[in-house]
Amino acid sequence: MLVAVVGGGQLGRMLGLAGIPLGLRFRFLDPDPDASAREVGELIVGEYDDEDGLKRLADGADVVTYEFENVPVDAVRALERYAPVLPNPRALEVTQDRLAEKTLFGVVGIPFHAYRPVDSLEELRAAIEEVGTPALLKTRRMGYDGKGQCELFDQSHAAAAWEAIDGAPSILEALVEFDRELSVIAVRDDDGQTRCYPLVENTHREGILRTSVAPAPDVSLDLRTQAERYANAILDELDYVGVLALELFQVGDRLLANEIAPRVHNSGHWSIEGAQTSQFENHLRAVLGFPLGSIAPRGASGMVNLVGSEPDAAPVLEIAGAHLHRYGKAPRPGRKLGHITVIADDAAARDERLTQIVRLVDQTPAEG
Amino acid sequence: MLVAVVGGGQLGRMLGLAGIPLGLRFRFLDPDPDASAREVGELIVGEYDDEDGLKRLADGADVVTYEFENVPVDAVRALERYAPVLPNPRALEVTQDRLAEKTLFGVVGIPFHAYRPVDSLEELRAAIEEVGTPALLKTRRMGYDGKGQCELFDQSHAAAAWEAIDGAPSILEALVEFDRELSVIAVRDDDGQTRCYPLVENTHREGILRTSVAPAPDVSLDLRTQAERYANAILDELDYVGVLALELFQVGDRLLANEIAPRVHNSGHWSIEGAQTSQFENHLRAVLGFPLGSIAPRGASGMVNLVGSEPDAAPVLEIAGAHLHRYGKAPRPGRKLGHITVIADDAAARDERLTQIVRLVDQTPAEG
Repeated sequence: MLVAVVGGGQLGRMLGLAGIPLGLRFRFLDPDPDASAREVGELIVGEYDDEDGLKRLADGADVVTYEFENVPVDAVRALERYAPVLPNPRALEVTQDRLAEKTLFGVVGIPFHAYRPVDSLEELRAAIEEVGTPALLKTRRMGYDGKGQCELFDQSHAAAAWEAIDGAPSILEALVEFDRELSVIAVRDDDGQTRCYPLVENTHREGILRTSVAPAPDVSLDLRTQAERYANAILDELDYVGVLALELFQVGDRLLANEIAPRVHNSGHWSIEGAQTSQFENHLRAVLGFPLGSIAPRGASGMVNLVGSEPDAAPVLEIAGAHLHRYGKAPRPGRKLGHITVIADDAAARDERLTQIVRLVDQTPAEG
Repeated sequence: MLVAVVGGGQLGRMLGLAGIPLGLRFRFLDPDPDASAREVGELIVGEYDDEDGLKRLADGADVVTYEFENVPVDAVRALERYAPVLPNPRALEVTQDRLAEKTLFGVVGIPFHAYRPVDSLEELRAAIEEVGTPALLKTRRMGYDGKGQCELFDQSHAAAAWEAIDGAPSILEALVEFDRELSVIAVRDDDGQTRCYPLVENTHREGILRTSVAPAPDVSLDLRTQAERYANAILDELDYVGVLALELFQVGDRLLANEIAPRVHNSGHWSIEGAQTSQFENHLRAVLGFPLGSIAPRGASGMVNLVGSEPDAAPVLEIAGAHLHRYGKAPRPGRKLGHITVIADDAAARDERLTQIVRLVDQTPAEG
């Protein structure tokens, strides 16, 4: 069977590595001729809105899926003529627009930070009054360059902030203190069955995921139940097939929705060694109509992202339980180049190993 | 780093799948343009004694290794001009010749079945007197077609047997009853450090490995110590770098050597999910000079080979703890097309799941 993937980054590469043992072949579309996934399948070099490239991608495929969500929805919809597109493009549509995403959270009953849609400087000024400060002004649509948000501390920043985001349709969101960031990786098959991996605790640095720990420590049954109910509600509402990540903030014993990624997710990479079935294999199983695999954890897992530079392999491989995952990418500041997962029999041993890895990674000199 | 592999079968494919996450690239030499490893690296289509193909294989590689041992030793030796060849070609030389292999067993003190070298019909007749019957007449060198052995029940079979093996230089080996077949997968790094995976219990059908169970049940400390001493003695004697498999017969509380494979081995496939570090990753770590990874088991593992035909994927994926590994090969009687590994928390659960898988595989209709 041939799986066509929109995007050929590290998520595509890991989908390929999980799918080749199942006898699957892969084809990727990516504008970068050095795309990370090139080593595990055919790479079509083309822009995401290139009709010809998209058609070549889908031609003869058993399913089209994506590992990157900022692709034109209409272009992806057009592919439904050639092959099933899963998850269905509505999931893209919703996650590409912060307003649509918040609306979805509201429809399925997931609490979230106070926000207001903002389409003009006047509306921004009114929103600041209503939402309060500090607040984040975020464009509704993501730029490819990761820009598109601006922090506001008081009303006097309004004009500058509005200019900083080029006056694009936006939302203003209250900046609320939270205890920690969690995520839930969930998968739904074409019969509507869902499974949620254990909750993951995440830390970020400069807006990029830095570490994940799974199962997250100190998760009450109530917290887990909330998270799974929210994830399942989103999956069902979108009639979703495949893996989806829901990022959450924990505030006391409550969870607030942050955002959704309609794909396998960085905070699920621990599942390669740390779960019975990885998020990558389960995504493939779901979109191809195979039975889902167990999401049960295997021991205690952790993950550290390698951003901008990579440590030497040897000291990493010396750490007990560490597994190196490099993406075959040239180093660049802020670029995800790989990750290291670590497994142990219990959380204490995992934490010790994770600390060792973080220290090693922090000592890596920046490239250039 | 670029790893060049002589042979592009499923072992090469699994080396590639283990090495890509380490950031390695792969190049394979195989006479079959549809070789299984083609999906995880560059494939040079050529015979194993094709000088030009071998040179192209080694050109620019950081190391040359093999996943198939019936390659001309001189051809492999010639590659040492271009890149380190590991394990060193002496291991090939020894394992290609049953007499040299027995001699090695003798040198390092591993017991084995009574045998006599046989170079003529007269010598065969004398050997039958000395070794007794039943006995196995085996050519010293393996044919590519897997032929080259003939069972003898008494002296009157001598002439026919000698004809059956085309009068090739051979050994006559006593056929001794044994309790079970075991194997030990061992790895040695370039500093001479060795690690042995837990002993594996194997069953065969029609001369092809059928199932493996790891760790093998009912292994006394003494038995394990014997096996590891034997494996380490061979590794050290050959100044071996990489993974090696030693097949053994258990007779009472003793182990007899059967044969060596100078490469990753079918009876070590369980290690992909069932060990901290798979045999494939550890082979790559060894030949590239990286630290070895832990060989500790993760739970109880089993493996069933898919020979000649493959079951549908869906019922396999429904079995708890089962992992499907397909090789991307066209079905043919007697051909290894894939394997299924299974993991469980304990041996009892593993055995139950393994039985389920064996039943499923046995129900698969033969191809053609």
